[in-house]
Amino acid sequence: MALEDGGGKWKNVALLVIDMQKDFISGSVKVKGGEAIVPNVIKAVQVARKCGIHIVWVVRENDPLGRDVELFRRHFYDKTNMASKGSVGAELVDGLIIEENDYKLVKTRFSAFLNTHLHSYLHTNGITDLVITGVQTPNCIRQTVFDAVSLDYKHVSVITDATAAATSDVHTANIFDMKNIGVVTPTLEEWCQSTEQYIS
Amino acid sequence: MALEDGGGKWKNVALLVIDMQKDFISGSVKVKGGEAIVPNVIKAVQVARKCGIHIVWVVRENDPLGRDVELFRRHFYDKTNMASKGSVGAELVDGLIIEENDYKLVKTRFSAFLNTHLHSYLHTNGITDLVITGVQTPNCIRQTVFDAVSLDYKHVSVITDATAAATSDVHTANIFDMKNIGVVTPTLEEWCQSTEQYIS
Repeated sequence: MALEDGGGKWKNVALLVIDMQKDFISGSVKVKGGEAIVPNVIKAVQVARKCGIHIVWVVRENDPLGRDVELFRRHFYDKTNMASKGSVGAELVDGLIIEENDYKLVKTRFSAFLNTHLHSYLHTNGITDLVITGVQTPNCIRQTVFDAVSLDYKHVSVITDATAAATSDVHTANIFDMKNIGVVTPTLEEWCQSTEQYIS
Repeated sequence: MALEDGGGKWKNVALLVIDMQKDFISGSVKVKGGEAIVPNVIKAVQVARKCGIHIVWVVRENDPLGRDVELFRRHFYDKTNMASKGSVGAELVDGLIIEENDYKLVKTRFSAFLNTHLHSYLHTNGITDLVITGVQTPNCIRQTVFDAVSLDYKHVSVITDATAAATSDVHTANIFDMKNIGVVTPTLEEWCQSTEQYIS
């Protein structure tokens, strides 16, 4: 049963899809667990669209000269050209497409909130609840999640099999810490059930 | 050998002592591993003073009515009165004393940088390197550390036995993630050796 905008039930919810770019999934700085979650992120986006959940694509697009890369890894940038703006590696992986009513936010650090206008954007558009997908769990996912909790979003959910880290141990340890600060951590299937959707 | 101001060698370094308050160490919301690290935090402060390392005391002092507590745990506040401003529980644990040239920063969220003037304060006072102590590793320690790295502090160190979590597994998993983003994680003894001090 497709809810198709769900009668506005999900209008306070945004799905954040974080760093699902070629370089991070299959390229120069790929996260080992990343490729395996691509189908689940695609499904999460599909379900979100059906419910009328707003989709925010959080990506990195680094200065080609590396001048805005974190200082701690700027010396690696010449070798990796990680998510260099305009490069193929900075593109979303196949199967993920930004549609007209979606929003794209470029960030340069782990947390999507740090020194960006994301909180202002979400707040002024009535978003109180966040659902998080993407890579990688200990860095961009977790830092965004902790900031979201600190910024008092009412409900923050991390879909455990639509997020990934280099190892399952790291992934699990980070999910554990996030649960401890009140974050909800459903599987994709559980989350889809909560939206009263069925995965086709 | 006491360096006594170290000829200014450490003038770019600040020691952050985070949440070493009675409620968090031995009180209503104590971190299980907290009490055991008190002697090491005391020593770290002593060594920092000898080297002329600037000491920043990061503390919580919550509104007695709880109106500035994180939303996710505001409903617990009536039971715990966690670090309520002016209460005994908000005081530093015995053995830790704020001296004249130290700086005290009050925060209301995990990261000492989130919506505080800490970065401005450190930056304008020439601080480029941070050494982190206190509780607890997965929350206030880690979020402060990740923000420090994101804000491009040159060297960020976490003293592994002057920080603590509820369990050693959580502590270790978080130290692992921090090392992966370039954070230095010495023991107190190793850090003291790096300052050319000897623990008396």
